[in-house]
Amino acid sequence: MTAMPRPDLSHQYTRIRGESVALCKPLEMDDYIVQTAPEVSPIKWHLAHTSWFFETMVLRPLLPGYREFHPLFAHLFNSYYDTVGSYHPRLERGRLSRPTVTEIYRYRAHVDEHMAQLFAHNAIANEGDCRARILLGLQHEQQHQELMLMDIKHIFAYNPLRPVYSELPAPTSSTAPELKWMEFEGGVRSIGHTGAGFAYDNEGPRHKTYLQDFRLASRPVTNGEFIAFMQAGAYGQPGLWLSEAWQTLQAQDWQAPLYWERVGDAWWYMTLSGLCPVDVHAPVCHVSYYEAAAYAAWVDARLPTEAEWEVAAADFPIRGNLRDAGFLQPQAAASEAGALLQLYGDVWEWTQSAYAPYPGYRAPPGPLGEYNGKFMSGQMVLRGGSCVTPADHVRSTYRNFFHPGDRWQFSGLRLARDA
Amino acid sequence: MTAMPRPDLSHQYTRIRGESVALCKPLEMDDYIVQTAPEVSPIKWHLAHTSWFFETMVLRPLLPGYREFHPLFAHLFNSYYDTVGSYHPRLERGRLSRPTVTEIYRYRAHVDEHMAQLFAHNAIANEGDCRARILLGLQHEQQHQELMLMDIKHIFAYNPLRPVYSELPAPTSSTAPELKWMEFEGGVRSIGHTGAGFAYDNEGPRHKTYLQDFRLASRPVTNGEFIAFMQAGAYGQPGLWLSEAWQTLQAQDWQAPLYWERVGDAWWYMTLSGLCPVDVHAPVCHVSYYEAAAYAAWVDARLPTEAEWEVAAADFPIRGNLRDAGFLQPQAAASEAGALLQLYGDVWEWTQSAYAPYPGYRAPPGPLGEYNGKFMSGQMVLRGGSCVTPADHVRSTYRNFFHPGDRWQFSGLRLARDA
Amino acid sequence: MTAMPRPDLSHQYTRIRGESVALCKPLEMDDYIVQTAPEVSPIKWHLAHTSWFFETMVLRPLLPGYREFHPLFAHLFNSYYDTVGSYHPRLERGRLSRPTVTEIYRYRAHVDEHMAQLFAHNAIANEGDCRARILLGLQHEQQHQELMLMDIKHIFAYNPLRPVYSELPAPTSSTAPELKWMEFEGGVRSIGHTGAGFAYDNEGPRHKTYLQDFRLASRPVTNGEFIAFMQAGAYGQPGLWLSEAWQTLQAQDWQAPLYWERVGDAWWYMTLSGLCPVDVHAPVCHVSYYEAAAYAAWVDARLPTEAEWEVAAADFPIRGNLRDAGFLQPQAAASEAGALLQLYGDVWEWTQSAYAPYPGYRAPPGPLGEYNGKFMSGQMVLRGGSCVTPADHVRSTYRNFFHPGDRWQFSGLRLARDA
Amino acid sequence: MTAMPRPDLSHQYTRIRGESVALCKPLEMDDYIVQTAPEVSPIKWHLAHTSWFFETMVLRPLLPGYREFHPLFAHLFNSYYDTVGSYHPRLERGRLSRPTVTEIYRYRAHVDEHMAQLFAHNAIANEGDCRARILLGLQHEQQHQELMLMDIKHIFAYNPLRPVYSELPAPTSSTAPELKWMEFEGGVRSIGHTGAGFAYDNEGPRHKTYLQDFRLASRPVTNGEFIAFMQAGAYGQPGLWLSEAWQTLQAQDWQAPLYWERVGDAWWYMTLSGLCPVDVHAPVCHVSYYEAAAYAAWVDARLPTEAEWEVAAADFPIRGNLRDAGFLQPQAAASEAGALLQLYGDVWEWTQSAYAPYPGYRAPPGPLGEYNGKFMSGQMVLRGGSCVTPADHVRSTYRNFFHPGDRWQFSGLRLARDA
Repeated sequence: MTAMPRPDLSHQYTRIRGESVALCKPLEMDDYIVQTAPEVSPIKWHLAHTSWFFETMVLRPLLPGYREFHPLFAHLFNSYYDTVGSYHPRLERGRLSRPTVTEIYRYRAHVDEHMAQLFAHNAIANEGDCRARILLGLQHEQQHQELMLMDIKHIFAYNPLRPVYSELPAPTSSTAPELKWMEFEGGVRSIGHTGAGFAYDNEGPRHKTYLQDFRLASRPVTNGEFIAFMQAGAYGQPGLWLSEAWQTLQAQDWQAPLYWERVGDAWWYMTLSGLCPVDVHAPVCHVSYYEAAAYAAWVDARLPTEAEWEVAAADFPIRGNLRDAGFLQPQAAASEAGALLQLYGDVWEWTQSAYAPYPGYRAPPGPLGEYNGKFMSGQMVLRGGSCVTPADHVRSTYRNFFHPGDRWQFSGLRLARDA
Repeated sequence: MTAMPRPDLSHQYTRIRGESVALCKPLEMDDYIVQTAPEVSPIKWHLAHTSWFFETMVLRPLLPGYREFHPLFAHLFNSYYDTVGSYHPRLERGRLSRPTVTEIYRYRAHVDEHMAQLFAHNAIANEGDCRARILLGLQHEQQHQELMLMDIKHIFAYNPLRPVYSELPAPTSSTAPELKWMEFEGGVRSIGHTGAGFAYDNEGPRHKTYLQDFRLASRPVTNGEFIAFMQAGAYGQPGLWLSEAWQTLQAQDWQAPLYWERVGDAWWYMTLSGLCPVDVHAPVCHVSYYEAAAYAAWVDARLPTEAEWEVAAADFPIRGNLRDAGFLQPQAAASEAGALLQLYGDVWEWTQSAYAPYPGYRAPPGPLGEYNGKFMSGQMVLRGGSCVTPADHVRSTYRNFFHPGDRWQFSGLRLARDA
Repeated sequence: MTAMPRPDLSHQYTRIRGESVALCKPLEMDDYIVQTAPEVSPIKWHLAHTSWFFETMVLRPLLPGYREFHPLFAHLFNSYYDTVGSYHPRLERGRLSRPTVTEIYRYRAHVDEHMAQLFAHNAIANEGDCRARILLGLQHEQQHQELMLMDIKHIFAYNPLRPVYSELPAPTSSTAPELKWMEFEGGVRSIGHTGAGFAYDNEGPRHKTYLQDFRLASRPVTNGEFIAFMQAGAYGQPGLWLSEAWQTLQAQDWQAPLYWERVGDAWWYMTLSGLCPVDVHAPVCHVSYYEAAAYAAWVDARLPTEAEWEVAAADFPIRGNLRDAGFLQPQAAASEAGALLQLYGDVWEWTQSAYAPYPGYRAPPGPLGEYNGKFMSGQMVLRGGSCVTPADHVRSTYRNFFHPGDRWQFSGLRLARDA
Repeated sequence: MTAMPRPDLSHQYTRIRGESVALCKPLEMDDYIVQTAPEVSPIKWHLAHTSWFFETMVLRPLLPGYREFHPLFAHLFNSYYDTVGSYHPRLERGRLSRPTVTEIYRYRAHVDEHMAQLFAHNAIANEGDCRARILLGLQHEQQHQELMLMDIKHIFAYNPLRPVYSELPAPTSSTAPELKWMEFEGGVRSIGHTGAGFAYDNEGPRHKTYLQDFRLASRPVTNGEFIAFMQAGAYGQPGLWLSEAWQTLQAQDWQAPLYWERVGDAWWYMTLSGLCPVDVHAPVCHVSYYEAAAYAAWVDARLPTEAEWEVAAADFPIRGNLRDAGFLQPQAAASEAGALLQLYGDVWEWTQSAYAPYPGYRAPPGPLGEYNGKFMSGQMVLRGGSCVTPADHVRSTYRNFFHPGDRWQFSGLRLARDA
């Protein structure tokens, strides 16, 4: 985690904090409060927790005389920072009627006002550690913006009334380009963050790794291709699945990606714009690592490693169907130009790499060391961002991670093969 | 369930329906939505379900041309009527952000308007079955009013911020009167509803039963007396407890009645007016059947049977600290006049009678048969109403019932002994 | 619990203790050890626990100088006597490989030898309390003999190899007699143990009760009748079932009584003689209270109360298909002579009475008070004994009790109706 | 998986199969049957399953005219081969009293006799695929021999009577040598099986990888060192633990490695020779990945990757406290000679590498493809064998794997550091 001096930190703060609020505009009061699954948090909790992060990591240690908004909020809105103090059980976030949404907006305002005071103290705000903490807080806020859209989708998809979050812009009426295989030469290569611009601690240190020759598919797997997999009976064939995948599939009775359902003879899925027919040209989304790996096995391919992905992506610009495009739903590739399509945006791409420390990685001391390092077991790395990721939030070195059975994030897959 | 012709049914409807809304006045929007335990329902669910009851049991069968407010509400707001159709899982009522509170108030208005139409059709509304269904719907509404106060208390007590529902009126500053034993002669006696006025089906038929001579305590057990039981180490002595009681106590780590907590050296409890010191003169409340039975064993007494209670109560007027008194919290007996104090109001009194059909009982046909009859296993009868029971809702023959481990209702105990 | 002086207590001890061992004769070593459900205990545990009962309740307090067989057996073989000390978790009895079966037989021998010493001390053995404890121990042993047959059946029925415990004697090739309704006049009647001969504490005190006029079916419901209920789709009709019954039925996917399975187009069931075609003339067995009550509702009848059963049974001799008949399986009624057939034996008959203390009941002090009294919540009374009940173990006043969802006991039903 | 022609395959078969039986010699009949945890299997199940493996993978496909021993054994003793057919639930293996131990020994004899017939057909037994399957079956048998000792230890440690499996040979009365750090130079290195001799499919293909310079501890962490970690309060400091580690630790109330307990002021542990004082000089054992990683973090070190371990171990002979040494318990290092002590034997060493396919890995087709490949998610690699691993079963390329929370295997740790 490093921080370059940037004159506009205060503007950046205002912009990003404002985006969190803007995302809530389509919500009814009721939509802020419920929790529809253990992994989902109430939207009002996100609004409070991101404020708590600035309060705890920036204002309390660095703004002289700062007084916390409410003595119990540290307990209510700490997510998982064990070294900071106790926290309300994650599974029970949806049982809290108080503080109200209104009060939480006041809490945000309180934090924002004191952050403005802090920005006014140039000497403080420009001090290296302070800038680094603020930058981290803003990246954290953006991560929660993506989580908010994931959670709103879950809350709405759970609801039998099938509410609409926002009307979809007209889709890019493309057909998926033909899948091609791009070849990459192996050898000793370097991956990891280089030091310019912000990166999370887990993206470094930059280090050498050895890659065999490999091939990557030119685009992610589409819904149409995934339907073929389903129609071939794949969800009933244990030989395609990892052992834990097969157990999960049976225990949860998976028949299709999350949010899919049969309407008559056709597959539909819930989107942030309501229930829609599945677009066979768009990348498949809301699949678990288990489903991604099973699909790859079915076509005699595999998932890329995160090093392969990063090496291949290094030369491409960060462009694509990210949140700012406004679709909030994966789209068919807009063009066939370029070798690797849809690297960024649309869907997070599962890799076959377990989320583990890079050689030489050391978690920073103190509570910020809990940000990433303590999750380095049991999860898999995903790369490239999705249609709900802020456009300025993703990097070629960005390591997202989820448990292999998770599906409520916007996750899909790109195939790889040995050369 | 019978219905006498009453000219004011429409006024009664307006009054009782209005009371449900009035109970919500102190609530923030957020307080309507959450579910803090499996047995608790969101307040907005109560408002919708009671409307669904009139829509389903009265308007759809009896108002010509009635169209339901929303086709999915039958699924969302059916509580447990299996013969009517499917229903949303009880444990997941708190996961529904839609319909919103606002929309549910519109639903109530829709139902009320059509009920007004129905009342305007005298021929319909005065027809016996229709009147009976409306009366049942109003009793049902009152039951849910009590549940709403129980659930609001649970929602607020769960919350670390300890919200206040309403400021308590100044308590009746009494000391508990001395406990006396009142003697009752046994023999063949009759219990059950006599036929005049409304009663639930489960209160009849009136029938003979045989009682041994018995004694009843002149008032319920107080908090002070219960503290003595706790201080004697009763929560750690298995010999005092039923087998399932001891298992429950250990599994849930009970040390005191529900809502009690230690503040320094003293016991406090959560009330609808917030956290207060325990009033040692008031009846103990929020105890399970298990705790009631253990306390009785500890003082070498027992709980009364429901027949004993009803026979003893038959001659007393229905007066006491019921909801209309406005305390919403049990109070020390206001006076020592009369033989049996606090029979009505303050706390529902656990009896040792399992909830079972009276001799000759037959559940009515159709969905209304599910109202009471299907719960006649695994529950115990309580008598007398509580401080959150509407004053015109309780009767000497009224049979309330809860599972022996339930504690979120306002339940206490009165001791009995063999003569 | 009372004890009359009987010269043959020592012989009775030898006989009953020997019967426990004889029941194990058909078992392989492996069959002694496993636990196939939470409610099932390993057979070797039964052999040890019944010995522990004599050791703890008789030898340790009453035989001077007695030394326990092993210091840890008190922990391992205490079932649920909280006032005596700790005990191994019931759910984990099947995880204990030691003590071995062989060692447990040595434990039995050790206890039997010291009981013989005690019997040799006439002064001790004839002292009232000692006799009472020995008699209770023998009744306890007989209860466990019934449990052993229930548990062996469960262990064998669970096993895909479907072992046979013993070949069935040729059944009494009867057809079920026609069901007739016997009328009984109500009024004040007395039930409960009269004081002559052994009875458990829960069978007294004898007391008056008031019965309405009632009718009882002349025989239990047969398998054939129950199949008609199943064929009518009863397991899919919520309106027939108690609320907790319907939940249980769905959670456990009940389609038929326990141990029944489809073989081609026919129903078969597992018996202690292996898998057999269902005998449509024999009483239905291994039904829960829930199924018994639903069947009764379906034929517009009800279950008897335990008082009705006892009053009706009072004039009949204790004869029937009890364990000593050797069938170990309910049989069609052998004859149509007599008004009430199969009152004793074949199947325990569910009553609609919750298991509760009789008026004036007081549990005895000390650990023996835990024998019956602490189970007086959440269970229902059954009457009459079954085909695995020792013939000298049942009485007209005998109150057996199980949870309403239990089915592994040999339980059936007899219908009742209001007169 | 490859197979070199070896003349002694039949002798090897006889020897290894005999070792499984020999391991059971100290057992009582009862010890074969119980299951004390989900991950533990009854010993008789191991004896049957390993025979099923030869029956299913060798005899049925390859011995003309072979008839299975019992038609249901395929269901009862299939472990997890979904492509072969159904299998009995793993959690319920301990509920099966039949087939008896005696019958399972007959099953083994049946399989062994037919294997002898097959060996007599040289043309078959020497055919490449047949030899490969037999070799795999023998390696499989050896894996289960290690599992049997793990499971016997669990079964005995669970038992309050603390049985002894075998008396321990006098330990090598050594003190642990001082811990030294051995330096290794990084660069492009090759790991994976080279092709000579048997290896599992998951050990290949051999491939290049890039290592940074690194250091390895000269010996595993000792019990004495681990006690210092415990005494420093590590089990109460969340900052040392991975997030899932901390959750596991709290949910299961871990205070020490598995099998440790306080006896007065000292730590003792259960061994296959009964309860013993902890040997502070021996390697710590029965720690999870979580505990290994937390210990490493505490001393500012890390766990090695499996590539580092393999590269470092490549030059060392396979010698150590393996099963054949007879200790069945980790021992203090016998000598300080050599750079890396105790690489093989004593304890499996946790690595920080998730169990994943090597570049170019393809699971073989058919059921044997389920042997290893489908477990490549959610588990971590361990290296080097333990005191219960057959001496001829381990290799420098051998990849053992367990879930990060597993502790019943003989697992410890060796520290690594960046150079």
